[in-house]
Amino acid sequence: MANEVSIGLLGLGVVGSGVLKIIEEHQEDLVHRLGRGVKVEKVLVRNLEKARQVDVDERILTTNSDEVLKNPNIDIIVEVMGGVDDARQYILEALKAKKHVVTANKDLIALHGPELEKVARENGCDLFYEASVGGGIPLLRSVADGLISDRINQVMGIVNGTTNYILTKMTKDGQSYEDALRKAQELGFAEADPTADVEGLDAARKMVILARLSFLTNVELDDVEVKGISDVSLTDIEYGKKLDLTMKLIGFAKRTGQEIEVNVQPTFLADTHPLASVNDEYNAVYVSGEAVGETMFYGPGAGSLPTATAVMADVVEVIKNMILGVNGKKFIRPQFEKKLAPPENRYSQYYIRLKVKDETGAFARISDLFKKLGISFERILQTPREEGYADVIVVTHETSYENFKQALEDLEKLDVVDSIRSHYRVEGDAKR
Amino acid sequence: MANEVSIGLLGLGVVGSGVLKIIEEHQEDLVHRLGRGVKVEKVLVRNLEKARQVDVDERILTTNSDEVLKNPNIDIIVEVMGGVDDARQYILEALKAKKHVVTANKDLIALHGPELEKVARENGCDLFYEASVGGGIPLLRSVADGLISDRINQVMGIVNGTTNYILTKMTKDGQSYEDALRKAQELGFAEADPTADVEGLDAARKMVILARLSFLTNVELDDVEVKGISDVSLTDIEYGKKLDLTMKLIGFAKRTGQEIEVNVQPTFLADTHPLASVNDEYNAVYVSGEAVGETMFYGPGAGSLPTATAVMADVVEVIKNMILGVNGKKFIRPQFEKKLAPPENRYSQYYIRLKVKDETGAFARISDLFKKLGISFERILQTPREEGYADVIVVTHETSYENFKQALEDLEKLDVVDSIRSHYRVEGDAKR
Repeated sequence: MANEVSIGLLGLGVVGSGVLKIIEEHQEDLVHRLGRGVKVEKVLVRNLEKARQVDVDERILTTNSDEVLKNPNIDIIVEVMGGVDDARQYILEALKAKKHVVTANKDLIALHGPELEKVARENGCDLFYEASVGGGIPLLRSVADGLISDRINQVMGIVNGTTNYILTKMTKDGQSYEDALRKAQELGFAEADPTADVEGLDAARKMVILARLSFLTNVELDDVEVKGISDVSLTDIEYGKKLDLTMKLIGFAKRTGQEIEVNVQPTFLADTHPLASVNDEYNAVYVSGEAVGETMFYGPGAGSLPTATAVMADVVEVIKNMILGVNGKKFIRPQFEKKLAPPENRYSQYYIRLKVKDETGAFARISDLFKKLGISFERILQTPREEGYADVIVVTHETSYENFKQALEDLEKLDVVDSIRSHYRVEGDAKR
Repeated sequence: MANEVSIGLLGLGVVGSGVLKIIEEHQEDLVHRLGRGVKVEKVLVRNLEKARQVDVDERILTTNSDEVLKNPNIDIIVEVMGGVDDARQYILEALKAKKHVVTANKDLIALHGPELEKVARENGCDLFYEASVGGGIPLLRSVADGLISDRINQVMGIVNGTTNYILTKMTKDGQSYEDALRKAQELGFAEADPTADVEGLDAARKMVILARLSFLTNVELDDVEVKGISDVSLTDIEYGKKLDLTMKLIGFAKRTGQEIEVNVQPTFLADTHPLASVNDEYNAVYVSGEAVGETMFYGPGAGSLPTATAVMADVVEVIKNMILGVNGKKFIRPQFEKKLAPPENRYSQYYIRLKVKDETGAFARISDLFKKLGISFERILQTPREEGYADVIVVTHETSYENFKQALEDLEKLDVVDSIRSHYRVEGDAKR
């Protein structure tokens, strides 16, 4: 093994620049810890002329992927270019050339993780992707190693910084969704086309990766029910406050016996739940294990240097494995058959807001409807609204999703109910 | 390597029982992940007759340490007996017999960690102690591996569950220190002799371990300034609330350039700081890295199963290393010379409560005194107290510890000041 480990970088955007910077600034520490230096040998870029956020020797830049992937000096490929198809091709090529791969690409891992892991194994290569979930938080490592002797039953995460920023602004400053989104775009927390973030797709991809590692089963993106935050109204956020509930976009992965459910949706959390006070662009993941109980991991979910820190943690692990000669020996792989929980086995509390005709006996008819379905209330809030109508909000005790959907259907037909204005899952209530 | 890994357990108390239970209940998972079973071969106990919290085959119990430490079938020694001298002797003996060691013993590691690590290295053995800090939180692993490419500059931790429980009861329920302590003892969160917890010694030992790993330097227990919570009054907690400050027992380790400081003391945290909402017996550690920014790890700091989970994570790592043939290759060891920061280089904000004579110009004289020392105020609160006196509370901006001590000395001499009632460090204010 050479005295210096050579890295090929695919992409030199926000994260790639951070990786370059950390390798440069922490070179002395790296040498001290690994007994050898780390060097970026080649960087694949789209455009050689583009202005960079980081000082870089132009001679190492190339637009020719062969110069990186077929470079015999390069031991480790770090993929930080994003996108799915090209990234997948490059990584497959790298692995087949026996190069280890570190990637920050959640889209790719969510869609093609199992295929890439298989090719990595076949070629005796490491494939690590700590940075794909939770940015700088050493999260996958904690789930995979730290809680290895435990059985993880539930993972609840705020895994998208953009939506958490928007919901924080709506909650704390009373900004509208549109204003908060615009502010997030100005600050660079949201992209020009924010769809993937605000519609929950980004969070769904991360939950696929987390659920796979937590439950050791092959969760796929299609298994995840996804709802974003673009319909969340200030009205509900304000009602939530009165009920000691905080709105967050929650990625939820739960195992009950052998059955699992994975979804992403705006969720009301009890104010006392540790996730409820995770604000702004921060991420946090709350993991419940059979033995350990509840643990939470908190930190920056994105950003150049935080994400690069996670990438470099993986790079350091690859290098350690190279020194020890034990690459490609990852011990965790899917071991359980996937069984998705049917609606009747998925329990939760729910918040339902109804526009109700303000007439005698209206509430009795509503509560009668819930009673027939065996759903009891934890909290009720009634407020006069416009002439002749009231807002009625009920927070149910735990009930099955099937039951809850039946309740919605029946409520639609009830003549005292003008309309169902909104409904959200409620979590974290009885737990503390 | 045998098809079953054999463990020798030293101690069968709270944590030992948890270890037995996890090995039994998660045997199938362990076999699946490691390709071999894990078996407890022998357990060293003090008293064979004692009633146990866990079902155990009595034939594996012994009072003779040789039957465990000299047992040729045993690969890994798990030390969960506590105490320092015997535990140290046993572990040294085990390492010299080429057995790997996992321990949950913070006292031992804080006092003799470097010696034990050296002997482990010399004998090609693993020595892991994840459970010694933060119970079930995979914390040391995160600091050592997850943030390996970063430079950690500050670690702030709630690392003692007993004191956090007591302070939470005082803060939330207005209980006196004595009542809260008694309640903690009833619930088993505090021992009959609570000294080590309430006087901060337990937290100090954990901070030694955290500081060593974070700063890669040989911090010793004598380097830690320690102050416990037995003097904390409800009065200050209530004043804190008015100033948006929450009282916590904080372990603090900071590096500025090459200089470090480590201490444990009751500290006022800004309410908005993530550590401020860590309540009851929970622990959390807030780590600031140069690149990653701020991350927090939260979870149960003690308890049978949570702590056993951390012990078993270490055991699993030892077994993985055995399978790969790479035991005893820990890459992190102290690399920097230890330099303690002198008082003039230790900066913080401070809360100071004075009993002041209620006379014209009193406050002017006090503020004059601070002004002369170049200390400015962030917040001031004055409340009439008993006849002729007022409570004056000032929260300073950042100042050096040297300056702060000078201020206390000068205040003592000021005739308008009847007495200095209390003073606390203030953290987390400007940071979010």
